[in-house]
Amino acid sequence: MTPTLDEVKAFFDAELPFFDRFGFEVDSMESGIGVVRFVYDEAWTRPYRIINGGTLMALADVAVYVAVFSEVGIVPLAVTNELKMNFLRPAVGGDVIARAELLKVGRRVVYGSVEVFMDGAPDRLVAHATSSYVLPDSGSST
Amino acid sequence: MTPTLDEVKAFFDAELPFFDRFGFEVDSMESGIGVVRFVYDEAWTRPYRIINGGTLMALADVAVYVAVFSEVGIVPLAVTNELKMNFLRPAVGGDVIARAELLKVGRRVVYGSVEVFMDGAPDRLVAHATSSYVLPDSGSST
Amino acid sequence: MTPTLDEVKAFFDAELPFFDRFGFEVDSMESGIGVVRFVYDEAWTRPYRIINGGTLMALADVAVYVAVFSEVGIVPLAVTNELKMNFLRPAVGGDVIARAELLKVGRRVVYGSVEVFMDGAPDRLVAHATSSYVLPDSGSST
Amino acid sequence: MTPTLDEVKAFFDAELPFFDRFGFEVDSMESGIGVVRFVYDEAWTRPYRIINGGTLMALADVAVYVAVFSEVGIVPLAVTNELKMNFLRPAVGGDVIARAELLKVGRRVVYGSVEVFMDGAPDRLVAHATSSYVLPDSGSST
Repeated sequence: MTPTLDEVKAFFDAELPFFDRFGFEVDSMESGIGVVRFVYDEAWTRPYRIINGGTLMALADVAVYVAVFSEVGIVPLAVTNELKMNFLRPAVGGDVIARAELLKVGRRVVYGSVEVFMDGAPDRLVAHATSSYVLPDSGSST
Repeated sequence: MTPTLDEVKAFFDAELPFFDRFGFEVDSMESGIGVVRFVYDEAWTRPYRIINGGTLMALADVAVYVAVFSEVGIVPLAVTNELKMNFLRPAVGGDVIARAELLKVGRRVVYGSVEVFMDGAPDRLVAHATSSYVLPDSGSST
Repeated sequence: MTPTLDEVKAFFDAELPFFDRFGFEVDSMESGIGVVRFVYDEAWTRPYRIINGGTLMALADVAVYVAVFSEVGIVPLAVTNELKMNFLRPAVGGDVIARAELLKVGRRVVYGSVEVFMDGAPDRLVAHATSSYVLPDSGSST
Repeated sequence: MTPTLDEVKAFFDAELPFFDRFGFEVDSMESGIGVVRFVYDEAWTRPYRIINGGTLMALADVAVYVAVFSEVGIVPLAVTNELKMNFLRPAVGGDVIARAELLKVGRRVVYGSVEVFMDGAPDRLVAHATSSYVLPDSGSST
């Protein structure tokens, strides 16, 4: 049931055009973990090259989505129930990594935590998110 | 201290290029309230014309920012401390409105609630968010 | 399917002993709305008669539970998925009211917003919460 | 500035009577980490010995408070800005541990994540919380 990284990338390419528009790339995926990168682009910044918070929330959301895929397969109808992000430091002038880790995979609800940091500085979080996803009824996944 | 709607729009135009890239427009502002519109653009959707959640979180965030401006002036250094969004229904195929209302304006922390709905259907929320902003020390606003 | 207020009170008395220990009382219930009161008791305070935040979170949680009952019946297995509370002002020296209103009643997920205020001062929130509940599979409710 | 564990315990005894009423005990404290225990008491349960969610939220909140003390000293006026808890599994019939870890200690805002688990089963979370605290102006701490 576990998809390959290439299958996940192909899914995003085919189904989620906004993914590319944001400048997101799936970096890696392993059991219960999804890592997605924002490739720095000045168009998403405010003065002083600070990357806007909306972009970081979108990035964290898709990182959880990838982590969910790693556990239950590519289930397009898995939907975000809620996401909270706390902003800890400005994200400035470079690629940003969101690393999602699932803390619970239930039959109906999946929950994960997301560390967001500048590429190369994993111990200095720029943001932290938690999010729950709701899975479709069994049998309806693809 | 209260800016005009035109001043707020000019601020977004000058300082926040991503605002336009998202297709956001400030619709209105009154005391403690900010209303921002996402002008529908298929580029931000997934199949079935469903607008992606990241766009809605970004929209809610800027709606709170506008509401904060209505109370404390254009304070670029007011920063989002945290935002939680719950996704209630798919946002499909049209303009989306985020209407933020502040529930508390403190000296250091501002808190607001955001209703997100399709244009024309304010009673049928597609998402709901709450968010706290932290204000810079008094004296440092512009 | 809608229970009466007395049936809800009887449920809490019979099944949730902690409800009474906290000093909680169900004040009222109508379609999609649950109102629960914390009867002031100094034992739940810190200095200056400030009511502790944990008590307010517990209060908000049960207010949502009551609101859920108003819509889907007394479903003991409806469980809190998540709750976020923002603390806006100290709650000092008196009864506290939590008024939960559901913003979405889905087949699997229910979402509500909770205003928390001192009795008699509904426009001056001491706290605000949002929460999602997950319902058991249809057929399993009682 | 760092208090000893005994000083923290003495503070809770003297200032926060509800702490004892909940059956909470500070287990340990180290730099940026606070561990608090709920000593099992049937009075806080619902049927099947399930510990109620309000008690777990209160427990997580004080665990963050202890972690804050470990970094900035015993600052009674540090206040919870917000706390979100996700409930992952029932907490049944035994002591519960909340282990808070700070992810950012700022001048004005402190942010932490809290793992909540049954004593002896740290890898099987019953709940997970994140919370931000706001510190009083420098100079006003005691």
